[in-house]
Amino acid sequence: MTLNIGVIGVGMIGREHIDRLANKLVGARVVALADVNAKQAEAAAAGLPGAKVHGTGEALIAAPDVEAVVVTSWGPTHEAYVLAAINAGKPVFCEKPLATTAEACLRIVEAEVASGRHLVQVGFQRRYDKGYRALKAAIDGGVIGAPLMIHCAHRNASVPEAYVSDMAIVDTFIHEIDVLRWLINDDYVSAQVLVPRNTKHTHAKLDDPIIVLLATKGGVRIDGEVFVNCRYGYDIQCQVVGEEGVVSLPEPESVFVRRDAKLSTSIVQDWKLRFLDSYDVELQDWIEAAKTGKVNGPNAWDGYFAAVTADACLKAKRTDAVAPIVTPARPAFYA
Amino acid sequence: MTLNIGVIGVGMIGREHIDRLANKLVGARVVALADVNAKQAEAAAAGLPGAKVHGTGEALIAAPDVEAVVVTSWGPTHEAYVLAAINAGKPVFCEKPLATTAEACLRIVEAEVASGRHLVQVGFQRRYDKGYRALKAAIDGGVIGAPLMIHCAHRNASVPEAYVSDMAIVDTFIHEIDVLRWLINDDYVSAQVLVPRNTKHTHAKLDDPIIVLLATKGGVRIDGEVFVNCRYGYDIQCQVVGEEGVVSLPEPESVFVRRDAKLSTSIVQDWKLRFLDSYDVELQDWIEAAKTGKVNGPNAWDGYFAAVTADACLKAKRTDAVAPIVTPARPAFYA
Amino acid sequence: MTLNIGVIGVGMIGREHIDRLANKLVGARVVALADVNAKQAEAAAAGLPGAKVHGTGEALIAAPDVEAVVVTSWGPTHEAYVLAAINAGKPVFCEKPLATTAEACLRIVEAEVASGRHLVQVGFQRRYDKGYRALKAAIDGGVIGAPLMIHCAHRNASVPEAYVSDMAIVDTFIHEIDVLRWLINDDYVSAQVLVPRNTKHTHAKLDDPIIVLLATKGGVRIDGEVFVNCRYGYDIQCQVVGEEGVVSLPEPESVFVRRDAKLSTSIVQDWKLRFLDSYDVELQDWIEAAKTGKVNGPNAWDGYFAAVTADACLKAKRTDAVAPIVTPARPAFYA
Amino acid sequence: MTLNIGVIGVGMIGREHIDRLANKLVGARVVALADVNAKQAEAAAAGLPGAKVHGTGEALIAAPDVEAVVVTSWGPTHEAYVLAAINAGKPVFCEKPLATTAEACLRIVEAEVASGRHLVQVGFQRRYDKGYRALKAAIDGGVIGAPLMIHCAHRNASVPEAYVSDMAIVDTFIHEIDVLRWLINDDYVSAQVLVPRNTKHTHAKLDDPIIVLLATKGGVRIDGEVFVNCRYGYDIQCQVVGEEGVVSLPEPESVFVRRDAKLSTSIVQDWKLRFLDSYDVELQDWIEAAKTGKVNGPNAWDGYFAAVTADACLKAKRTDAVAPIVTPARPAFYA
Repeated sequence: MTLNIGVIGVGMIGREHIDRLANKLVGARVVALADVNAKQAEAAAAGLPGAKVHGTGEALIAAPDVEAVVVTSWGPTHEAYVLAAINAGKPVFCEKPLATTAEACLRIVEAEVASGRHLVQVGFQRRYDKGYRALKAAIDGGVIGAPLMIHCAHRNASVPEAYVSDMAIVDTFIHEIDVLRWLINDDYVSAQVLVPRNTKHTHAKLDDPIIVLLATKGGVRIDGEVFVNCRYGYDIQCQVVGEEGVVSLPEPESVFVRRDAKLSTSIVQDWKLRFLDSYDVELQDWIEAAKTGKVNGPNAWDGYFAAVTADACLKAKRTDAVAPIVTPARPAFYA
Repeated sequence: MTLNIGVIGVGMIGREHIDRLANKLVGARVVALADVNAKQAEAAAAGLPGAKVHGTGEALIAAPDVEAVVVTSWGPTHEAYVLAAINAGKPVFCEKPLATTAEACLRIVEAEVASGRHLVQVGFQRRYDKGYRALKAAIDGGVIGAPLMIHCAHRNASVPEAYVSDMAIVDTFIHEIDVLRWLINDDYVSAQVLVPRNTKHTHAKLDDPIIVLLATKGGVRIDGEVFVNCRYGYDIQCQVVGEEGVVSLPEPESVFVRRDAKLSTSIVQDWKLRFLDSYDVELQDWIEAAKTGKVNGPNAWDGYFAAVTADACLKAKRTDAVAPIVTPARPAFYA
Repeated sequence: MTLNIGVIGVGMIGREHIDRLANKLVGARVVALADVNAKQAEAAAAGLPGAKVHGTGEALIAAPDVEAVVVTSWGPTHEAYVLAAINAGKPVFCEKPLATTAEACLRIVEAEVASGRHLVQVGFQRRYDKGYRALKAAIDGGVIGAPLMIHCAHRNASVPEAYVSDMAIVDTFIHEIDVLRWLINDDYVSAQVLVPRNTKHTHAKLDDPIIVLLATKGGVRIDGEVFVNCRYGYDIQCQVVGEEGVVSLPEPESVFVRRDAKLSTSIVQDWKLRFLDSYDVELQDWIEAAKTGKVNGPNAWDGYFAAVTADACLKAKRTDAVAPIVTPARPAFYA
Repeated sequence: MTLNIGVIGVGMIGREHIDRLANKLVGARVVALADVNAKQAEAAAAGLPGAKVHGTGEALIAAPDVEAVVVTSWGPTHEAYVLAAINAGKPVFCEKPLATTAEACLRIVEAEVASGRHLVQVGFQRRYDKGYRALKAAIDGGVIGAPLMIHCAHRNASVPEAYVSDMAIVDTFIHEIDVLRWLINDDYVSAQVLVPRNTKHTHAKLDDPIIVLLATKGGVRIDGEVFVNCRYGYDIQCQVVGEEGVVSLPEPESVFVRRDAKLSTSIVQDWKLRFLDSYDVELQDWIEAAKTGKVNGPNAWDGYFAAVTADACLKAKRTDAVAPIVTPARPAFYA
């Protein structure tokens, strides 16, 4: 059985997902495209035999031959498309963010719960990374006992001028926000943000680096460095400290070189290379799950929880104080 | 365009390749099966909509809808099937060995050259392993200068009673024989085998461990440990020493655990897990290449050269002397 | 020239230093001992030809043949002995703490400044550890650019019941307090303490683990985990993040073992083994410096600053709030 | 008790040992010096209060106040001085080689046995290296079961023109020859030498690299790379493969640096830095042992066995054939 997919938004990430669905993954086919820029949609469709371009995302969602939807359009449009997909009863994979405000995310949660069907997956791909999966397997397998602390770092070699302070939370640390909850199966209750001296390599509108502190319901403490002009590469570190031991994310596989008085391995520069495989695994898993009416990956509640947490981090930074992270009780639907 | 593939031999490796072709890879479809055990072929066909079972491998190869052939039958049958595929002008992927004698391999080489078309690929999957590819990229990129020596080890946790001494060369070290030539783009000229004291964990018909020494035309010296009852896991090591530096195969990615007074990573036990991804990459590459009449991977000449080298290793061990490795000149066809 | 040394306090650490001075280090001789327990002093003197036991520390300090003093007595007695040594114009090596209150430390600072001579060294031995020295050399050599953050961890396998919460700061984290200032040549301005859920392996009077957050005058942010029932060993981690790169403390040298499906190195259990060499280097350096009227190691001001910082950490934990770290200006004497 | 030592030969290594004895180690004092270059001996004596310069090594050995002798003169003089020390009944520490021929070494062995006293230690300092000691402790502790193979490498960044082919064995690999026997408590029975293509960085009189193959009485096989123009640094590798596991020499402790797209540690350039500590430990141990009439380190038999092995390696290389390693039975004296 082949899943007929419509893709809304054919920008960079959209085209990458189209390429995955068309050329790398199995069990799916891209049958429909839509983009606010119709020309770009036509161009993308050129390489996809039988794919139809729709005038609007809503039309695409409504099309009878579209069985599932991938939303890779501009963030502010996500809510409407995801809600439309829910109303149409069609599985939808929405790139992060699920929506641009926590309130909008909550509306999606409520709509999904009301629909009674599991339809929404959010594009937090780290849960599909081999390294994080090994980390979770070790934790779930009792290797370190009950978790007590997580130390992590999210470093980019550099960011463009358009990347401003809030993005360190909502675009960058958001990945840790999602994946750490999943790793330790816990929820956050408060956030605090520390602001060291700026690196000389940042620009006027960006505080870089920062340190985010999170506390969980279970009493776990997390410190997460976000440093997006670290110069040396894209580097993701994560160490979970438990009652019996400590487990750390693997360094990505790299040859060992002895040369010029150094023993060295390479650090990737491009974040896309670091998590390249995880996007394939993520979408393939979504395809399989969508066919059986399930969502294995990050769901709407996870997208909402991430949004609430990000808001608290922004507030904590703005106020230089601990900000509580409060949500309604998680609907039983997501248990 | 989908490549219609016929698979001859549905034993363990055959069924794994069928699963890959049917469920993991793109651009191909299994349309025909054959096996000396017709029942097993029928069973395998059950999960493949539209796949036809043929009474013989020859019939499968001749079938008009079969565009390319995968040979995963018992080794002694390889030669005939590969020759038949060449005669039929159909691309053929043949699991190692290409044939059970060097002479038979040479007949395949001659047939392919005579056909004027590149049709044969041998299943040496290590050339598709991420780690070996990174190693080759480093060497080709000049990171270590011109290679001078290679130190390597091929260790298995244990082998069954049916695994006898020759298999250490023809089943196990054969992988190094192929991949090391490819790594340094050189050919072997002689072999020698050292036989240490046996481990107490071996059995009467198996000398274990052994050390194979190879010399290349370019003057590179290789020492390769083969130890198939090493107890602790499946472990592949490879270090290439060049005029400017040294590069080593990465350790497979694994979480770092601190517990019980140790900092440790895991070593896989099962060789199939170690190179799992490489089989996917290999077959996907073969599919793409077959469609365009090319062979990117190990070709018939490589299969032949590996057979000649393995024969020399066996002779060297038997005679406790250096054995020359001699072949006719490589046909320009394979340049 | 041999330095004649008197040692006050012959408990465990005292006897270890006596053994060092008598049997491992050069250029010094233990000529005098004193201890509140006269019998123990006599016993210690038995192995030291020519060493005299004095009835009090003050008498020892006053003895004409004593040229320099090592104070390894009970913490509350340190202030008086160090002040007496300063008054006598004799170099004094005082095990941590310099004194049990910041005020007492300040009195020592003032006395030393008034004396006009550099006489006091405090036993923070990490500055003499090979690993920390390499770390400092890398930082001072510009390898990572200007420091921005430090992430560190101080873990013990376990502690006895007598070890209560304050000791996590004043006995354990005190080492980080001293060595991190030295590493980045900066001073602290505030402290905060986070308290995760307790490990089940702690006891009623000990919050374990905790996380100490320090901010420096230069804007560097430090997060330091203190976890003294981590079970798996004594483990010291330190990573300094700078504008151009990141440098981490080496793992202590250990053989690599491949066995039982693991690649592992050992983690020491005993903190004394981890820093064993540094004690030798420390005392040897002190001996050399004392002969020339210098103090190369942590001085009285460093001891005072550590005490003020520890007090702020304790207050921060007690009040669950950020506590400022305030001292008078550093006397020019210590520049 | 202080051991009064006479040093014969005040070249580079001689002066280093004098400095150790005088300024770093305990329990010894340099009271006598001799050198073929009297002026140099006088200069060296200048910094040693009370040290007397003797006209000849023989005179030094005969001097009543000299209790033990260190021989660091030119190799061809070693035999006579060591024999003289044995005749005088004085402990002697002789830098490698014990003598320049196996026959001369055997004469020393016979003289020592005849004297009935353990007097001779040879300067193979690797047995005192922390890393090798940890390796031996692991092997002796049963961590890897019975040894089967050793893979090792001895690499220097570069060597001067004066370093010719034989020196790769007698000056460089000689260290492996001694330390590997000690590691696995076994003796060699044959040697073979492989000669890869020369690196372009060598010179006319030096084959570089080479690979030495040794077989032991117990059936262990050793392959040892010697590469003295490897460019990148001084690098010693040693991996011992046993029936239950594999253990490798630690990498020397070094900070981890993340910078410029690499995670790296440093490799030392100078061999003296690599084994610096081991010289101190070696001489200190010799001092202690000499006082009690023992030899803990490499003895005359070890020096002899190393000479015989080196000769066999040279012959194996010259003849391109396996050369047997034959000695008389080890005297019970050395059991």
